Amino acid sequence: MESKKSILHIDIKGVSPFIEQEEYTLFYKKAKKAFKTLTEGTGRGNEFLGWLNLPNTITKSQLEEYNNIALEWKENTDVVVVIGIGGSYLGAKATLEALIHPFASEVGSNGWPKVVFAGQNLSEDYMAELLDLMAGKRVSAIIISKSGTTTEPAVAFRIIRKHIEDNYGEEKASKRIIAITDKSKGALKGVADKAGYRTFVIPDNVGGRYSVLTPVGLLPMAVAGLDIEKMIKGAADMRAICYRESDYNPSIKYALVRNLLYSKGKKTEILVNFNPKLQYFAEWWKQLFGESEGKEGLGIFPASVNFTSDLHSMGQYIQEGERFIFETVVDVKRPSRSVVINSDSLDSDGLNFLAGNSLDQINKMARTGTMLAHIDGGVPNIFIEVEKIDEYNMGALFYFFEFSCGISAYILDINPFDQPGVEAYKKNMFALLGKPGFEELATKLRERL
Amino acid sequence: MESKKSILHIDIKGVSPFIEQEEYTLFYKKAKKAFKTLTEGTGRGNEFLGWLNLPNTITKSQLEEYNNIALEWKENTDVVVVIGIGGSYLGAKATLEALIHPFASEVGSNGWPKVVFAGQNLSEDYMAELLDLMAGKRVSAIIISKSGTTTEPAVAFRIIRKHIEDNYGEEKASKRIIAITDKSKGALKGVADKAGYRTFVIPDNVGGRYSVLTPVGLLPMAVAGLDIEKMIKGAADMRAICYRESDYNPSIKYALVRNLLYSKGKKTEILVNFNPKLQYFAEWWKQLFGESEGKEGLGIFPASVNFTSDLHSMGQYIQEGERFIFETVVDVKRPSRSVVINSDSLDSDGLNFLAGNSLDQINKMARTGTMLAHIDGGVPNIFIEVEKIDEYNMGALFYFFEFSCGISAYILDINPFDQPGVEAYKKNMFALLGKPGFEELATKLRERL
Repeated sequence: MESKKSILHIDIKGVSPFIEQEEYTLFYKKAKKAFKTLTEGTGRGNEFLGWLNLPNTITKSQLEEYNNIALEWKENTDVVVVIGIGGSYLGAKATLEALIHPFASEVGSNGWPKVVFAGQNLSEDYMAELLDLMAGKRVSAIIISKSGTTTEPAVAFRIIRKHIEDNYGEEKASKRIIAITDKSKGALKGVADKAGYRTFVIPDNVGGRYSVLTPVGLLPMAVAGLDIEKMIKGAADMRAICYRESDYNPSIKYALVRNLLYSKGKKTEILVNFNPKLQYFAEWWKQLFGESEGKEGLGIFPASVNFTSDLHSMGQYIQEGERFIFETVVDVKRPSRSVVINSDSLDSDGLNFLAGNSLDQINKMARTGTMLAHIDGGVPNIFIEVEKIDEYNMGALFYFFEFSCGISAYILDINPFDQPGVEAYKKNMFALLGKPGFEELATKLRERL
Repeated sequence: MESKKSILHIDIKGVSPFIEQEEYTLFYKKAKKAFKTLTEGTGRGNEFLGWLNLPNTITKSQLEEYNNIALEWKENTDVVVVIGIGGSYLGAKATLEALIHPFASEVGSNGWPKVVFAGQNLSEDYMAELLDLMAGKRVSAIIISKSGTTTEPAVAFRIIRKHIEDNYGEEKASKRIIAITDKSKGALKGVADKAGYRTFVIPDNVGGRYSVLTPVGLLPMAVAGLDIEKMIKGAADMRAICYRESDYNPSIKYALVRNLLYSKGKKTEILVNFNPKLQYFAEWWKQLFGESEGKEGLGIFPASVNFTSDLHSMGQYIQEGERFIFETVVDVKRPSRSVVINSDSLDSDGLNFLAGNSLDQINKMARTGTMLAHIDGGVPNIFIEVEKIDEYNMGALFYFFEFSCGISAYILDINPFDQPGVEAYKKNMFALLGKPGFEELATKLRERL
């Protein structure tokens, strides 16, 4: 087990100036209790614990199915449109932003299709531009929706389905559309069966924001050419670590420390990266924690920054603004690529003392220097590190934060698996759009405008 | 003047359930005073008020100079690398994200070069990938730095300069590099003069985060093919509005309301858009307000979301989490493009009642429905609207928020134009990197690790 311990390193030294030993002991007890509630499945929302066992129950043949589709589309598809929102979007988006070359359109993608997203917003401009991209290209689509009636993806699917059917005819189009949806019920399941789409199941006991290791996340990753077996391996190895009931369990440590800080008025947590590839990982994390904990007037507000970029924007505030914030740095030990600073004969910028260093060596000193400066400024920080940015470590990070979030919400005595507040805007929207059945609400809302 | 009044519409109805008339009157007085302090130049940091008059003092011939370079590089350049960080990055980045086709690499850019950024981080992976992009392409660069010694852009400039010189030789390379820097002093000015680069001046009395309407923002926009004259026109028209000492001045209204909410414990402001094109406008806004106000233990924490995407991530928190937040929606009256929802013979998603509507009509109802739902959930909101996303309106928005920020910081009795906290991490970083002169600090820091 020793090797697994080192997948993820957590350091809470940057919190110690802000907390007392007794407080830590108290919250450690709470965290251990919450850990038991989670792993024994005795807490609120325990009908949604299916994600706990995804990494160790997914089969080789399931992964092979996704990979076979990937190989098929590699041959006959230029652009894959993944249609989904929230948990049906952010996991794949985070992974693609982390692992696909940002200039793949110019430098090539080894023949893998370009994977783009739709149905994650209602922007007319974006949809028009997506249609520009699709014009003349060989297009396939993955529609991800439990019910098939969520407005954003449903509307996008109407438009993109029509585009594909107009180009290929209904029969051929049906080979280019895959639906990821409920196993038996819902509008999308009906459409898919009727049209003859291949379908994959979103398990009943896995909520959207915990679904990245189901086909919801894995199929979009596979068709982009990523190694989903490695991702599952990383998640499974992390699962073994998270299930250990010991002081070294990093998920217990993270969950307890953030709740302890919250109890002392640190109401905003800033997830920090030092590599822009992790920008959308933070967006995935924001949904995970914000949607799991932000209810009943409670919860830590999740924010994020990309350093060192944002040291030159949000850095001033973090150093000297209101003191209700703490930071969690998610960093990697080493970059995937190598660039060394060259010497300059004139040394006009005075940086020759850096010549011969890799860029990452400077980035690491910026990281350490920043963490120390922020502690001095009154901002506690938690440090989390994995080896590098690849499928294995992304899988580990996904599982780590999901597990930590379950513990964290139970410490707070919140149901981590519902999202009652998401309906409020939908109802209003339907009423204002004149959906049948919402007439009374519509009248009330219009009076307020 | 009537037409100018309508450039930007502000509505604070969504705040009224949360404030009393007397409070508004009190803060209106404070705002009027702050307005005078700003426009009469009598406040703290008043040596940095040059940005107030940029839109009405910039000359046709200055704009022509930028446009001439754009035409020159359109002929001989595939990729322009803009090197800068913070205020030397975010204005141009925000504008390009708003106005350049996101799939320009695939659908074409009318011959304009691809504009990319460097020196906005220390990521080794990103730099390696940028070098991949540059390989075999005709590359030019704009280096933006007041001093020339800020680590991130200085290091990036070393690498990119070497790349260009290796490809073209020093003399030809000097035609492909433009420096935007101090008028007379600093390391970059020295390098530029020696190498024979064309240079443009960052005025002494304009700080980084207020510099988007100087060459810092305008040259990168021009070389991307954008209409900088329209941008200046929008800013100039907005300036005329902001300078009016009247109840209809939207910048006074915005500054006073956000401070009033802050005084009542609303410590976090979330800038909301309903069009992903404005995602990086929010990043620019975060630097502007965070760096201007986040000091002396004060200031509203600036955050942002992209709706409706983030209604399925941060939406739950905003609706039902801790009640220390308020929202400012920045929206546009109409999209630039058109996509209509098609009818579906089966209507399996139940959305045929939307058929014939444009996507934007649904987006607008989502917006209104969300604002009402959030007010009901205890989140005040401010609504700001411009006509559309184009150069004219972006120029107006930039000026509007700069002006509002000046007033806002003066209401709070904060110097809006310094950023003392940004130095802290830099000193630590230099010490840890072994920069000569930082030996003592280095010893102290290493003891803490």
